[in-house]
Amino acid sequence: MAKPIAGPEIERLIQLLAKLPGLGPRSARRAALYLVKKREPILRPLAAAMADALDKVGECSVCGNIDTSDPCTICQDPARDQSVVVVVEDVSDLWALERAKALNAAYHVLGGVLSPLEGVGPEDLTIRQLVERVSKGRVKELVIAVNATVEGQTTAHYLMDQIDGMDVKATRLAHGVPVGGELDYLDEGTLSAAMRARTAL
Amino acid sequence: MAKPIAGPEIERLIQLLAKLPGLGPRSARRAALYLVKKREPILRPLAAAMADALDKVGECSVCGNIDTSDPCTICQDPARDQSVVVVVEDVSDLWALERAKALNAAYHVLGGVLSPLEGVGPEDLTIRQLVERVSKGRVKELVIAVNATVEGQTTAHYLMDQIDGMDVKATRLAHGVPVGGELDYLDEGTLSAAMRARTAL
Repeated sequence: MAKPIAGPEIERLIQLLAKLPGLGPRSARRAALYLVKKREPILRPLAAAMADALDKVGECSVCGNIDTSDPCTICQDPARDQSVVVVVEDVSDLWALERAKALNAAYHVLGGVLSPLEGVGPEDLTIRQLVERVSKGRVKELVIAVNATVEGQTTAHYLMDQIDGMDVKATRLAHGVPVGGELDYLDEGTLSAAMRARTAL
Repeated sequence: MAKPIAGPEIERLIQLLAKLPGLGPRSARRAALYLVKKREPILRPLAAAMADALDKVGECSVCGNIDTSDPCTICQDPARDQSVVVVVEDVSDLWALERAKALNAAYHVLGGVLSPLEGVGPEDLTIRQLVERVSKGRVKELVIAVNATVEGQTTAHYLMDQIDGMDVKATRLAHGVPVGGELDYLDEGTLSAAMRARTAL
């Protein structure tokens, strides 16, 4: 565009909104227009919520979760079994497991997976902090809940090497058919894993 | 969810983001997570841009465009032919026409279309303001660029009735085959309109 359609303030808002995942340039324009039209009901509270998040939200120094307190709510929760630590790649995985109420335990966010191709080495992840956490002796089980990708599995193996000889049990999520999933759409690896791990009906 | 995953600040951010067009609950979560992770590069400037928009952006009292100045940049532009007014339903249509550099003229944003079913009458739109603008005598042509929907056409006809007898020419956008469009995918109405308005090659 030769000249901006609206003022530079709106153009800037559009450009920043377009950087959010899930919003392209076109939907960012729609979102910006929606915001300036819904000034009081949406724009004002959203601007306030962002300022608030900017102010209060940070990373938990223990597990890497994102929260308003440090250590985070999960790390401080006495009702959780803090001796079981679920190791995930990303905070979004932590959130997904929490939504599923999968396990009432603590977490450790790696911040990614090992990927030589993308130049991600062990020092880019929070592996050292995890090993430190385990070496303090209060962790009895590590549930390695990384994604079932090549990088995820490489990371899991690297992690196993690091905790080798320590007094901690390592487990992983079961493979199998997703609940509600159709066999026809599943890959062979999942199907044979599900078959091997079949259970009595 | 029984209890919030993260602090109430993040939950609130997610809920507000989910109200934006194009973002559902799932993508709002991803966006919120992205924002708190990209604190400095994205969250801080976006919060500032929103505060800025809240502060400065408003509706143009002449044409209904959204801008930081009132009258808006377009209404104040001496390089535009202010005697030609393009009538659109929404600011997004104005933006679309501006992106296309369709006409170097002024605009009038109706704020919607007449829709008895949804209870939208003439007093809910800026029709009175438009008639006033025309009656001042400086407008020579109204390009009625409402959408080619039933409501849009009803609104166009109502508008024509209102300016009946005034010294102003009313025009509408040409119907035809979209540039790059495939005939096979076009409806019969568009095809026959394009055929009737065929031009010499």
